[in-house]
Amino acid sequence: MDLVARLTAELGDAVTVDPERLDAVRTDKSGFIAPNLPLALVEAESVEHVQTTLRLANEAGVGIVPRGMGTGLAAGAVGDAGVIVLSVAKMNRILEINPADELAVVEPGVINADLDDALAPYGLWYAPDPASKAISSIGGNIATNAGGLLCAKYGVTREAVLGLKVVLADGRLLETGHRTVKGVTGYDLTALFVGSEGTLGVVVEATVRALPRPAGDVVTIGAFFPRVRQAALASSAIVEAQLRPAVMELVDGQALEAVRGYLGDAVIRDAMGPTTGDGFLLVQFDESPAPETVLRAVELIEREGGEPRVSTDAATGEQLLGIRRAFHPALAASGEVLIEDVSVPRSRLADAFDAIAEISERHGVRIPTVAHAGDGNLHPNFVVEGGLLTPQLKAAADELFRAALAMGGTLTGEHGVGILKRHHLIDELGADSYALQRRVKAVFDPRGILNPGKVFEITE
Amino acid sequence: MDLVARLTAELGDAVTVDPERLDAVRTDKSGFIAPNLPLALVEAESVEHVQTTLRLANEAGVGIVPRGMGTGLAAGAVGDAGVIVLSVAKMNRILEINPADELAVVEPGVINADLDDALAPYGLWYAPDPASKAISSIGGNIATNAGGLLCAKYGVTREAVLGLKVVLADGRLLETGHRTVKGVTGYDLTALFVGSEGTLGVVVEATVRALPRPAGDVVTIGAFFPRVRQAALASSAIVEAQLRPAVMELVDGQALEAVRGYLGDAVIRDAMGPTTGDGFLLVQFDESPAPETVLRAVELIEREGGEPRVSTDAATGEQLLGIRRAFHPALAASGEVLIEDVSVPRSRLADAFDAIAEISERHGVRIPTVAHAGDGNLHPNFVVEGGLLTPQLKAAADELFRAALAMGGTLTGEHGVGILKRHHLIDELGADSYALQRRVKAVFDPRGILNPGKVFEITE
Repeated sequence: MDLVARLTAELGDAVTVDPERLDAVRTDKSGFIAPNLPLALVEAESVEHVQTTLRLANEAGVGIVPRGMGTGLAAGAVGDAGVIVLSVAKMNRILEINPADELAVVEPGVINADLDDALAPYGLWYAPDPASKAISSIGGNIATNAGGLLCAKYGVTREAVLGLKVVLADGRLLETGHRTVKGVTGYDLTALFVGSEGTLGVVVEATVRALPRPAGDVVTIGAFFPRVRQAALASSAIVEAQLRPAVMELVDGQALEAVRGYLGDAVIRDAMGPTTGDGFLLVQFDESPAPETVLRAVELIEREGGEPRVSTDAATGEQLLGIRRAFHPALAASGEVLIEDVSVPRSRLADAFDAIAEISERHGVRIPTVAHAGDGNLHPNFVVEGGLLTPQLKAAADELFRAALAMGGTLTGEHGVGILKRHHLIDELGADSYALQRRVKAVFDPRGILNPGKVFEITE
Repeated sequence: MDLVARLTAELGDAVTVDPERLDAVRTDKSGFIAPNLPLALVEAESVEHVQTTLRLANEAGVGIVPRGMGTGLAAGAVGDAGVIVLSVAKMNRILEINPADELAVVEPGVINADLDDALAPYGLWYAPDPASKAISSIGGNIATNAGGLLCAKYGVTREAVLGLKVVLADGRLLETGHRTVKGVTGYDLTALFVGSEGTLGVVVEATVRALPRPAGDVVTIGAFFPRVRQAALASSAIVEAQLRPAVMELVDGQALEAVRGYLGDAVIRDAMGPTTGDGFLLVQFDESPAPETVLRAVELIEREGGEPRVSTDAATGEQLLGIRRAFHPALAASGEVLIEDVSVPRSRLADAFDAIAEISERHGVRIPTVAHAGDGNLHPNFVVEGGLLTPQLKAAADELFRAALAMGGTLTGEHGVGILKRHHLIDELGADSYALQRRVKAVFDPRGILNPGKVFEITE
C-alpha cells in the first residue's frame, strides 16, 4: 500500500488528492509556483494527525512540507512532485490565555491578529506584528521568525516564544522551553526551532508571551525629504539619539510614485499638505512620549532637510501610516512582485538606499523600496514581467544581496530562505556554518523528509 | 610529546602547571571542589590561543573546560583530573561601542559591570544584571544565559546577544548571528550557544545589544508581610495587574532572620520603620512610573496584608534594596552555602514558598530563600555543614526540584546545570529531548572534548 493510501486509511477525510486543492498549495505569496503537484494534502486537525503523518512519511522516506496559511514570501511552504503538504491551518484554537503568567498557549494555525484580538480584553498583546498579521498564522510566524514594524522596540517572534510542542520527523512529540521567564536546562531548542522553516519538526503548539499592551497616547510624525538618503540619515539619527519610536518606516521615491498612483495625489495631500519629496519617513511614538522626545525627532528630521508634520490625534496618525500601508497594494496592482527582504545595521541604512539606487540605474530596473527603518530591514520590490524573473532582474537581486552582506547585513530579515534564497545562503553563512547546520538538521531529521530542498540547497 | 608539552611549546607562558594555580580552577562559587587537579591551565590571550588549544586537545582527545571568572554556581567551569582548563579571563577588551547600531562588541573576559560602565557615558546600558555582575564575565554570563533582577522587564542574556564568534572543538572559528536587529538565515546558532555551558564551543567574541539606559525617576516600595505566602501573592497580583516593575524581589522569614543578624536590627528599622514580618517584598519601578501605578501596587500590597513603605528618593531606595542585597553576604558569613535556583510560573510563587516551608520542616533543614519574584526565580539556600551535603540536605534539595517541576517550573533559572544538577536534567527534559540534545552536542563536538561530564551526565 502506498503512503497516500495508508494516510487515507488512517486519517480519512483529512487527506485530499483533489488536483485543485493540490494546485493551491504549490504556491505562496511570493508568486513562486512549483512545477508539479504534490502527492497529497493532509489537513491535520490534531496533534495525532500530525504524528501519524510524519511517522508514516518517515517510514516511507517521503518528504513532508509543513504549511500554515501559505502567506510566506520565500516559497518555504510550497509542495512539489513527490512530497506531501501537511497543513496545520485547521489547528487554530487558542488553548489558554493566562494573564497571571503573561502567556498564551495556541495551536499553530491561529491567525496572528486573532490571537492579538483575543488578548486585548485582558489588556495584553502579542507583540510580533508582521504586515501579514491579518492572514498569517502563529505557526508560520514561528517558522520564519517573523518580524514586522515594531521589532526595534518590541522584538521579533523569537523573543515572544517561550516554549513549543513539536512533532519530530519520526512522529515523536517533543516539548521545549518553559512557562517560566527564565530557564537554562540544556540547549535552547525553542530558539532553534524558531526560524527553522519547517526543516527540523512541525510545531503543533506554542506557548507565547502575552505582554501588557502599551498604553498612553500615540504621536505620529510624517516627513517628506528631497532625497531618500536624507530620510535614511534622519532615521539613523533618531536611533542614535535613543528616542525609541515604536514604528519608523521609510518609503523611497519610486515607492512613493507607486503609492501616489494608487491612492491619488489628493489623499497624500490631505495627510501631508502640499509638500512632497523623494523620500517619506514615518515615525510613531507610543506610550505618551515626552514632548522633548517628539521635538528632538522633529529637529533631527529638519536637520536632514525633511519637512515634518506632527500628529497627536489617532485619525491623522492613521492617515500618515496609510501612505506606508498603501505601498504593497499599490505594487500588487501594478503586476506580479518579488518582495526582497535584506537587513543592514541601522547606521548603514542610507548606504543601502544608495546601493539600491545605483543597482536600479545600472540595470535599468525599477526597485521601489520600503524599509522598516527602525530596525534596518529593507523591502526592495521587483516588478516581475510575465510571472518570471528576467536575467536582468536576477542579476540586480544578486547584487542587492551582495551589497547587503558587504555592509554586515543579511539576505533576509524576516521572510526566511525557503526556496528563493537557498542558493545564496552559503554566501552569508560560510561553508563551515552551512555544513554544521546541515548536520544539526540531520540530528532532527535523519532521513531528510522535513521540507526537502528548502533553506539548504540540494547539493547531492 | 604529550599535550601539555605541545601546548607549552606553542603558547609558552600562557600554559601553567603550577599546583596552586590548578587548585584554584577546580572550584567555583558553588563551593564544589573537584577531587583532583586538572592537567594544566591555559590562560588564553587571543583567539589564536583558544584555537591552538582546542585543535591540539581535539587531536589528543583530551577534555577542555572553558572558564571565565570562575563565579559559576553549578560547577560548570571546574577542572578535574585529565582535563585542561582554558581560561578566557585575560581576553577582556571592549572592542567596539556603537551607539548608531545600539551594540557593543566584546571579548568574553570582559566583566559585566565594566561593560555597563563603559556604555554609561553614551547613555547606553547592558541590561542583563546577574547579582555577580561586578565579578562575572560576559563569556560566563553567555554560557549560563545569566539572569538577574531585571529580567521580567528587560530580558535575560539570550535577548541581549546578537552574534558570537565561537571556536569549535576542532579549532575552527565560527561566526553566528548578525549586527542587525532582524535576521533569519538558517538556524539560530547564537541562541543555541547561549546557555550551553561550554559544551558546544568556546565563545571568543560577542556582539551584544547596548540599549538606551532607562531614564527618569525610580520609585521603590518595601513591604513586610506577616507571612511570606502573602508577599508572594502580592507579587503575583502586581504582575497580573500589569504594573511592570523593573525589580521585584522577595525575602522569606528565614532569610530575613539571617539578614537581621548580619545587618543588625537598627539598619532594617532605619529603612523600614518598626514594622517587621515573615516576608519582605521589594518593588522598584523605573522610568518615572505614573502615580496610579505606584498607588495600585501599594493597594495590592495592603490587600494581602503587607505594610508598604514608599520611597521616591534614591538614597532610601538603596537602603531598601540593601536589605535584599545583604542576604547572600549574610548567608556566606554563616558558613558554606549551596544556592539553589529553581524557577516557577509566576502564578505559582506562593505555592513554591509553601512547598519550601513544608520541605524545610519535614526534613528539619533550614532553607532561607530569596526570589526574583518578578520573574518567578527562587534561590533557596542550603547551609552546608563541613563542606559536604548531608544526605538530609540532598533529599531536601531533590524534593525541591521535584516540586518545581510539578508546578511547571525548571531546575535552574539562571545558574545552569554544570555538574551539580546534571543528575536531574533528564527528569526535566525527558528521555527524548535529553538524547536529542546529546546528539546536537556530538555535531559540534564529535570527540566529546568540550566540558566533559558537565550538563549531561556521563552514562557510558
